[in-house]
Amino acid sequence: MRAALIVVDMVRDTLEGERTYPITRPARAIVPAINDLAEWLRARGMPVVFACDSFLPGDFIFNSRLKEHSLRGTDGCRPSRLLEVADQDTVLYKRRFSAFFKTDLDQTLRTWGVECLLVGGISSHFCVLHTVLDGLCHDFRAVLLEDASAAPSQEIHRAVLSHYRDNPLYPLLRVMTCEQIKEGGLE
Amino acid sequence: MRAALIVVDMVRDTLEGERTYPITRPARAIVPAINDLAEWLRARGMPVVFACDSFLPGDFIFNSRLKEHSLRGTDGCRPSRLLEVADQDTVLYKRRFSAFFKTDLDQTLRTWGVECLLVGGISSHFCVLHTVLDGLCHDFRAVLLEDASAAPSQEIHRAVLSHYRDNPLYPLLRVMTCEQIKEGGLE
Amino acid sequence: MRAALIVVDMVRDTLEGERTYPITRPARAIVPAINDLAEWLRARGMPVVFACDSFLPGDFIFNSRLKEHSLRGTDGCRPSRLLEVADQDTVLYKRRFSAFFKTDLDQTLRTWGVECLLVGGISSHFCVLHTVLDGLCHDFRAVLLEDASAAPSQEIHRAVLSHYRDNPLYPLLRVMTCEQIKEGGLE
Amino acid sequence: MRAALIVVDMVRDTLEGERTYPITRPARAIVPAINDLAEWLRARGMPVVFACDSFLPGDFIFNSRLKEHSLRGTDGCRPSRLLEVADQDTVLYKRRFSAFFKTDLDQTLRTWGVECLLVGGISSHFCVLHTVLDGLCHDFRAVLLEDASAAPSQEIHRAVLSHYRDNPLYPLLRVMTCEQIKEGGLE
Repeated sequence: MRAALIVVDMVRDTLEGERTYPITRPARAIVPAINDLAEWLRARGMPVVFACDSFLPGDFIFNSRLKEHSLRGTDGCRPSRLLEVADQDTVLYKRRFSAFFKTDLDQTLRTWGVECLLVGGISSHFCVLHTVLDGLCHDFRAVLLEDASAAPSQEIHRAVLSHYRDNPLYPLLRVMTCEQIKEGGLE
Repeated sequence: MRAALIVVDMVRDTLEGERTYPITRPARAIVPAINDLAEWLRARGMPVVFACDSFLPGDFIFNSRLKEHSLRGTDGCRPSRLLEVADQDTVLYKRRFSAFFKTDLDQTLRTWGVECLLVGGISSHFCVLHTVLDGLCHDFRAVLLEDASAAPSQEIHRAVLSHYRDNPLYPLLRVMTCEQIKEGGLE
Repeated sequence: MRAALIVVDMVRDTLEGERTYPITRPARAIVPAINDLAEWLRARGMPVVFACDSFLPGDFIFNSRLKEHSLRGTDGCRPSRLLEVADQDTVLYKRRFSAFFKTDLDQTLRTWGVECLLVGGISSHFCVLHTVLDGLCHDFRAVLLEDASAAPSQEIHRAVLSHYRDNPLYPLLRVMTCEQIKEGGLE
Repeated sequence: MRAALIVVDMVRDTLEGERTYPITRPARAIVPAINDLAEWLRARGMPVVFACDSFLPGDFIFNSRLKEHSLRGTDGCRPSRLLEVADQDTVLYKRRFSAFFKTDLDQTLRTWGVECLLVGGISSHFCVLHTVLDGLCHDFRAVLLEDASAAPSQEIHRAVLSHYRDNPLYPLLRVMTCEQIKEGGLE
């Protein structure tokens, strides 16, 4: 089955910024797993997409505790330099949580013949989950990557995995490790 | 602040069908809370929307453990008769989890001058949560209704509430009880 | 090639209302062609969709010369009784010009395996054209039906046909008569 | 009224490429009008958006007479160097005709407080018109710029202007010259 890796919000402002967040350390911890799976997929001719928050100054969501960050057009919303980004990879600047929200990702994936999304990055219970759910809505299978996604706390991350591991949409929606993918678990 | 109640997937096939699901009992348990809050909002001139799954025969999501149900055009996808639906309420037939997915709900809410969504129904970790996240994406405040939404297990429901109760998007994203709404918690 | 007929805005308020519009007479004139092509397609197992304006009271577009009409939930936005609507046909209530705008028509058509849209109805230079262009955007072939669509004046209708008849997107975008369709022109 | 200029498809591959198209000459002819109106708007703090075709290799629309051009990620889909692009301007890479199709332009314009779109560029009867119609669908007023848009032939361009000049959506939809805008015609 043709798959694509969607790496969500692993951006410079969050992973490399002067300011650190509760998510910064868990985000850095999954970098090796993401780099490894991305390389494995590229070697098989499958696409890798880095979906990156890119907000406007004065954006609605900053009417909250969030400080302005990952502003569109700045380096802060680019994929972290800790990640290996290949020439053939796609960087998708998104406006909100889900990589599909007001983007043409669904159409791009269909053009590429993709059937299944492997979704990693941060945070498990916000942008990663939203991308997984939207992927299913757009008629793609979706895998929540157990060891290539992260939340601010291990407790939240583990709860999210457990909520969707055994679910009525199986096998369209699955929770898997990168190792399970590489061992042929998608076929 | 002008609010709208969005009641997600409280449909006949799930609440009243011959077949019962793990969600059926928890769904029935929140009916009084939904009816009460809906009445309270109508009395204040605020809109109530019943967003109901309406799948096609052969729909992608039935390539799973889900049996065909809530088919578009059948009575099974209408709001359960346990709910009180007033003439001025809106019934929105949706195709996927979120009430916003490929619908014009965002535009309708703006036309109505709504700023804040109160989201209840089932299930907390699928369609309710997806609607909450999409609402925020569309620049609406969103409240996950603690006692007017439900999941197949209390454990999942409570975990979802705890994950989003204290969050970086507060006060755009809040977890509240119906009582807190009625006591003026939105102002 | 699997096709679907999309009949745009042939609604009661426009075709049968007390109030007549410049488009009323040309709209009535194409009823026989639409009924005939719909029947021909149904006999071949191909879908027919009636896409109908359904505005909200106070809708943005009424800040114009347009009087309120085709209001959602009223009989006025249903397909005209001059049209034959079969049980298996789909009635799609849309919010704006294009049948694709904030609807799930694209996903429905993919689920049905449709590759080509045959677009008729009114008006050639507004909702019909907008549906044709949106169909192409969603990666469907589109045919503007020469003798099953109409504009308030013959001059406008003929100009629209001529602008798109010979075009750089041929054969994805075509202008055809119903007779050409039936003679196998799509294959 | 707060307006934004949307300049459609004035890209390098079309205006500056080795290959010339029927639209190349008319496109170059409207460059001065676009540059002038853009400058006038910037001086009043109003935004300018360059919406540029950016196709994928193997894109659906290339199953036609269109040769591959304006490919995403190449210089060919950037705004032509004949245009003056200021630092504060926005370049929006779009996938299809309309600047709104699967983009977040509608949300961006609302965030900016824009009420009215001034749409120019090429071609009058495809991407310009589609952007105008989509703008109206998204509840923005829209002006088709008479002397800052162009079609491959003067005949088509003039017909498009005449079809929408006097229309039922007036004054939400208008055909105006740049001079009329500058003389205060929007107020």
